[in-house]
Amino acid sequence: MQETQERVLYDLAGDDPERRFSPYCWRTRMALAHKGLPVRTVPWRFTDKDAIAFTGQGRVPVLVDGETAVHDSWTIALYLEEHYPDRPSLFHGAAAMAVTRFVNSWGDRVLLPLVATLIVTDILDHLHDKDRDYFRASREKAFGKSLEDVVADRDNRVVAFRQAMEPLRAMLRSQPYIGGDAPAYADYIPFGVLQWARAISPFPLLEPKDPVIAWRERLLDAFGGLAREAPAY
Amino acid sequence: MQETQERVLYDLAGDDPERRFSPYCWRTRMALAHKGLPVRTVPWRFTDKDAIAFTGQGRVPVLVDGETAVHDSWTIALYLEEHYPDRPSLFHGAAAMAVTRFVNSWGDRVLLPLVATLIVTDILDHLHDKDRDYFRASREKAFGKSLEDVVADRDNRVVAFRQAMEPLRAMLRSQPYIGGDAPAYADYIPFGVLQWARAISPFPLLEPKDPVIAWRERLLDAFGGLAREAPAY
Repeated sequence: MQETQERVLYDLAGDDPERRFSPYCWRTRMALAHKGLPVRTVPWRFTDKDAIAFTGQGRVPVLVDGETAVHDSWTIALYLEEHYPDRPSLFHGAAAMAVTRFVNSWGDRVLLPLVATLIVTDILDHLHDKDRDYFRASREKAFGKSLEDVVADRDNRVVAFRQAMEPLRAMLRSQPYIGGDAPAYADYIPFGVLQWARAISPFPLLEPKDPVIAWRERLLDAFGGLAREAPAY
Repeated sequence: MQETQERVLYDLAGDDPERRFSPYCWRTRMALAHKGLPVRTVPWRFTDKDAIAFTGQGRVPVLVDGETAVHDSWTIALYLEEHYPDRPSLFHGAAAMAVTRFVNSWGDRVLLPLVATLIVTDILDHLHDKDRDYFRASREKAFGKSLEDVVADRDNRVVAFRQAMEPLRAMLRSQPYIGGDAPAYADYIPFGVLQWARAISPFPLLEPKDPVIAWRERLLDAFGGLAREAPAY
């Protein structure tokens, strides 16, 4: 572990370079903070493919840790856990890491697609000019319809997202974090989804009295308010 | 740990006393087998409230372990883990136990309600005569409609269940069990849901080539084929 080497995270940004809104990058930023590892974040836009071409792919987060480049939020989490074993653990053992991979799939396969359909036009509104055409074209191709049609009727459809959070909500009656008494990487997965939306959209994903909000508030306060102080709604 | 004391599990049964179909009891049976703890199962019907009145509540699983009575599948799992620490672990540590509680909530809040709407009339068909009126009345009150209306259009609605299994399905690309390389209690939660349906219903919850089926097959084979050998479809 060379503490003096530079550590850089390519982090998805909007037109305002301080507005960071990738759900995956937020997992990584919380993981780095959990480990107590300082990082210099570099604002990155969707069309800045050249800037991360050295990774052989085109998506962030990309972590450059001294001589090592790692991409993909889950791979980065495993890298941090392995390479900084003396820092606070993200998982607390291989067994919890395995179950957390299930939570990661839940975040990716259930939460992210639902939230995307609720905020995708808000993302568009916050993008750097150079990203707008790329974003609209690539997302409309993926959705098979206009972004405006994707978000239509979101006031009613948000119920499905709130329902999808029920496993977390129910669990919170028994313990304050998915990690148990303290947050773990498993918490940063759904938290990243909420922080993505919070960074980019005024749309209320959760009802004010939802216990999930209290959990989110605790994570917004974590690490000196790292996530709370980021530009957001 | 007194290995000579009797261990009894009250286990939900149909008209055929060997047909055991509670998703919660299956979690417990797999947990007991995982721990290598022999158990005598007692067929129990919904209306046998008196038989378990000593627990102060009316639902199974109820485990009587010598002098100790424990109810609720999650509480039983914690009890087994604490009282039989020298047996194979169900969780492999407090951190994994905490994340597994999230999986438990996912099973209870997402999978169980979806599957109930797909098989509830099949349950009715397999009940002991003495349970039928109670079951229909209590479930129709809960659903707010007839059981036949609840299961209507299940050929189309099953898609929602298959979609709800996507976190497990996606995870299986990376590891063979939620527990990692070997099954853990986290696996027995969704497995219990599938075994509940399998015990009582010919309705195909999953498509034949679904990777979830291969995972289920491995768990049907576990512990000498405990779940495979039980009466089922």
